Amino acid sequence: MGQLKRFFIGSPLRTRQIAHEKLPKWKALAIFSSDALSSVAYATEEILLVLALIGFGAFAYSLPIAIAILVLLTVVTLSYRQIVHAFPSGGGAYIVAREHVNTPASLVAGAALMIDYVLTVAVSISSGVAALLSAFPSLLPWRVELAVFLVMLLMILNLRGIRESATVFAFPTYLFILSILLMIAVGWIQIWKEGWHGYHAQGAAPAADMWTWAGMLLLFRAFASGCSALTGVEAISNGVPAFRSPAPRNAAITMTWMSLLLGMMFFGITLLAYAFGIAPKEHETVVSQIAEHVFGRGPLYYVIQVATTLILFLAANTSFTGFPQLTSIIAQDRFLPRKLTMRGDRLVFSNGIALLSVLSILLILVFHGDTHALIPLYAVGVFLSFTIAQWGMMKALLREKKKGIARIAVIGFGTLITGLVTVITIVSKFTEGAWMVTVAIPVVVWMFYVIRNHYSEIAKELRLDLHFQPQQVKTKVIIPISGISKVVAQSISYAKGISDDIVAVTVDFDDEHAGQMREKWEKWNPNVPLIILRSPYRTVIAPLLKYIDTLEKEKEENEFITVLVPQFIVRKWWHALLHNQTAFLLKAALIYRKDVVVSTIPFHLHE
Amino acid sequence: MGQLKRFFIGSPLRTRQIAHEKLPKWKALAIFSSDALSSVAYATEEILLVLALIGFGAFAYSLPIAIAILVLLTVVTLSYRQIVHAFPSGGGAYIVAREHVNTPASLVAGAALMIDYVLTVAVSISSGVAALLSAFPSLLPWRVELAVFLVMLLMILNLRGIRESATVFAFPTYLFILSILLMIAVGWIQIWKEGWHGYHAQGAAPAADMWTWAGMLLLFRAFASGCSALTGVEAISNGVPAFRSPAPRNAAITMTWMSLLLGMMFFGITLLAYAFGIAPKEHETVVSQIAEHVFGRGPLYYVIQVATTLILFLAANTSFTGFPQLTSIIAQDRFLPRKLTMRGDRLVFSNGIALLSVLSILLILVFHGDTHALIPLYAVGVFLSFTIAQWGMMKALLREKKKGIARIAVIGFGTLITGLVTVITIVSKFTEGAWMVTVAIPVVVWMFYVIRNHYSEIAKELRLDLHFQPQQVKTKVIIPISGISKVVAQSISYAKGISDDIVAVTVDFDDEHAGQMREKWEKWNPNVPLIILRSPYRTVIAPLLKYIDTLEKEKEENEFITVLVPQFIVRKWWHALLHNQTAFLLKAALIYRKDVVVSTIPFHLHE
Repeated sequence: MGQLKRFFIGSPLRTRQIAHEKLPKWKALAIFSSDALSSVAYATEEILLVLALIGFGAFAYSLPIAIAILVLLTVVTLSYRQIVHAFPSGGGAYIVAREHVNTPASLVAGAALMIDYVLTVAVSISSGVAALLSAFPSLLPWRVELAVFLVMLLMILNLRGIRESATVFAFPTYLFILSILLMIAVGWIQIWKEGWHGYHAQGAAPAADMWTWAGMLLLFRAFASGCSALTGVEAISNGVPAFRSPAPRNAAITMTWMSLLLGMMFFGITLLAYAFGIAPKEHETVVSQIAEHVFGRGPLYYVIQVATTLILFLAANTSFTGFPQLTSIIAQDRFLPRKLTMRGDRLVFSNGIALLSVLSILLILVFHGDTHALIPLYAVGVFLSFTIAQWGMMKALLREKKKGIARIAVIGFGTLITGLVTVITIVSKFTEGAWMVTVAIPVVVWMFYVIRNHYSEIAKELRLDLHFQPQQVKTKVIIPISGISKVVAQSISYAKGISDDIVAVTVDFDDEHAGQMREKWEKWNPNVPLIILRSPYRTVIAPLLKYIDTLEKEKEENEFITVLVPQFIVRKWWHALLHNQTAFLLKAALIYRKDVVVSTIPFHLHE
Repeated sequence: MGQLKRFFIGSPLRTRQIAHEKLPKWKALAIFSSDALSSVAYATEEILLVLALIGFGAFAYSLPIAIAILVLLTVVTLSYRQIVHAFPSGGGAYIVAREHVNTPASLVAGAALMIDYVLTVAVSISSGVAALLSAFPSLLPWRVELAVFLVMLLMILNLRGIRESATVFAFPTYLFILSILLMIAVGWIQIWKEGWHGYHAQGAAPAADMWTWAGMLLLFRAFASGCSALTGVEAISNGVPAFRSPAPRNAAITMTWMSLLLGMMFFGITLLAYAFGIAPKEHETVVSQIAEHVFGRGPLYYVIQVATTLILFLAANTSFTGFPQLTSIIAQDRFLPRKLTMRGDRLVFSNGIALLSVLSILLILVFHGDTHALIPLYAVGVFLSFTIAQWGMMKALLREKKKGIARIAVIGFGTLITGLVTVITIVSKFTEGAWMVTVAIPVVVWMFYVIRNHYSEIAKELRLDLHFQPQQVKTKVIIPISGISKVVAQSISYAKGISDDIVAVTVDFDDEHAGQMREKWEKWNPNVPLIILRSPYRTVIAPLLKYIDTLEKEKEENEFITVLVPQFIVRKWWHALLHNQTAFLLKAALIYRKDVVVSTIPFHLHE
């Protein structure tokens, strides 16, 4: 086991090595921006999928929707640059809300972020697999298996530690950025040379029922689906401590670069899709269709598909950085199990990484790795946490009073807009799956409070008055035996060392055997009384428990009862199957008894 | 858990209730003969399936093959009536071979029987499901699920105890016998009135390539497949102790009745299939086709199908009686884990029942619940154990010298014939799957020897010289702590009661915290030294283990080290998730250490 762990996870790192795990900007961009950048792989497609419900003519609306999303991106980026400077210790919306709004708001943000991290893994991996299947349709039957395998691969990489990941992961991010920008550039040269091919050229008229309520709702839903492009722009604000110093400044610069790249790629792809007249297909992504249109199914097409899969894999990895950090902070505040604060021996929050892996694999299994089915759940949490973070930021700035009015206005506007988008997202995608998130967030918040309450009560209960001095307390020792052997002799030796009040107990099914046992015991005479219990039901455990029950009732207030259970240490694992489980069953039955100490005495079998 | 167990398994029975679990003949027939009788549901079909490989004309050979099988049945029945009288304590081939041949032969018989019990469950349940699917084809997609469910149902019924099963099971056996006999009678009246419909009437000529080597091999394979009709006739000889006294006489009478019924039904069905010109179909059994031919799809047809399913369910149940009894006897001889000898609180061998369930479910899953795929594995073990049992019987009779020559000749002939059938079965079905059984039997026998060897060595190792007197041995006590609390105070009280040599140990990640801890400890001053271990890797377990290592090296020869591990007894199961697994991990790491006693001290949380 240990060797297997070393092989996958690597050797342990010392605590002081934490400091070395700081990232330069170009590596941090790869680690923290892949979530945001990779969303261009599916955002345009999700807009077109909703518009297709109105009619192909409605595809023209993808351009104003994309522009609205670009405006939203600008607003959010400006706000988050401020947050990075004001809260360099990371934690994003949760910490901002905790410091400047109140606990309930911070817990709502925390719940929303946790859910979105899990969704990021599920959506990115599903979408990455879709990109791969567009290029290699023969893999279609293994869609879900591939997705689960990729999540498990991510888990192993992250249990190894963040810095190695950054080195491994920088290359594909830049490959993706360059290949997508190349595709956009070549695409535009083609259009410039050959003219428009798409719906615009075909002069398709917008659907007539566009301006009804249902039509408007669909337009909003298309916008809300496109907003999935913005998921992950907050990742940098949660990861500031991982930057080289001056961390806040480097983080803010990285954020600006990320938003510029994101905006260019998203708008470029949406424009090309429109210009080429591309509609969503079941087993081929929109980006794959554009790439095929621009490059044909040549080497560059495959580079785009592979780079897309890789960056979506990195996007999922963003969650593997953010989620364990977030849950560790929440757990420090005692709203989550304390074990989430413990770093493993590679200096990462191993439990958080494992938890994220399990949850996202569950989501992938439930939704059969289908990106379109997961998208309606997505983005609600992101925009809710955007809103709460900016709200807290604005409150903090208003309190400090030294910041300019213009800046506060920008953030106030950002809060308003992202709050509006949250509502639009919930309303327009409610029946499609957004309802699940609106149920899940309160449930998670309720869980936070239950956990916190439990910890508070326990701490109260365990508190010790330092004037209290522990006194020596005697114990009675019980040795369950099935015959006379070296194991029994060893247990008696130990028992004599810890108490003067010892009794050996055996369970017998028939009187004859019991008599022989009594005779042999008296011949041996180890100065310990033997009690023989009769078992009408032929079980060993029940009569022993009954006997211990009577002793518990008879004993004095503070006295302990110690039960000695022999543990055979076998040389080969399968030998364990050959020795009676009686000891194991007895331990399991006794471990929840008050005042009963269970002591396991090892006996090494040499054979 | 306890209540759930009571609901499914029933209340515990007292040991003296064993005596009451004796069966009258008519109930014993239902319990022990269902395996043999039920095989008429598939034996004819398996013959025709092989003959179909030659051609429909070859179906005429089903009649001579059936007659050969009837002769074989007579021979085996006569032999086993002798065995029942000579070995009334049950155990069948295993005990006969152990007493009168030698240990290797008895182990081969034991392995063969064990494998066949598992196959009986898999084949009978698969075939029972096939009967059900013939009547209700809409259930087809759930074939494997249904089979697994039925095995689990059998497991629960058998964990409840044998007598209740007999009462529940008698009705369907007699329903099956009566309905099949009725079907045969009505079928013959129809033929008598209307003349032959089948191949005979159509004058189909036997295939020309019949008398080649390949053709002969197929004929032998058809015969070997038909021999599956004889599986289970030995069940009564293994179950003699369950009969009312005089048990051997009652068992012998029951066996004769069983063979008569089996012969009539098997030959009747084979004859009707031939007369009606019925060929095997993929999703409908031969018996279903006959029943439809005779009764149409009316109520009587459904009675036949349901009765067939039920008796095949009972056939599987035969194994649930025989397998645990057999493994209990083998385990008493120390060739299997001792836990197979332990009766559960309903007086049945619970572990044997559970083992049989697991193995047969595995077989059903691997072979997708397909009877035809399982049949080639079947019967090899049965005929091998028939041969060994008769061989042993013959040796015993020759030794006693008081039995007549004629009787010995009958059994010698039986031995010869069943030995021949074993060889035919292996050779003719070798590539179809019989090879698996010829591999599995030696593997199981090898396992028997490995287990027996291990037990012998251990017994030698544990043997105690009664002149040896256990001496008092001191222990050093280690209390791992993470802070100062009531839990620590309680542990120290216990430690002071069992030793004078106590040390508290804590693991710390940073110096500042360690200093505070040291200061607080000195203020408290419980008269126990505190050792603070530094952890460069931020893990708690590794430094503790290293510290215990050093103590193990320093201590005297016979001294023990006791590690006190607190166990929080939580009020609700999920509270366990909120308390650090450190104690659990520590216990797991220490339990295999020599000379280290792990003592679990309960601390009840009231919140």
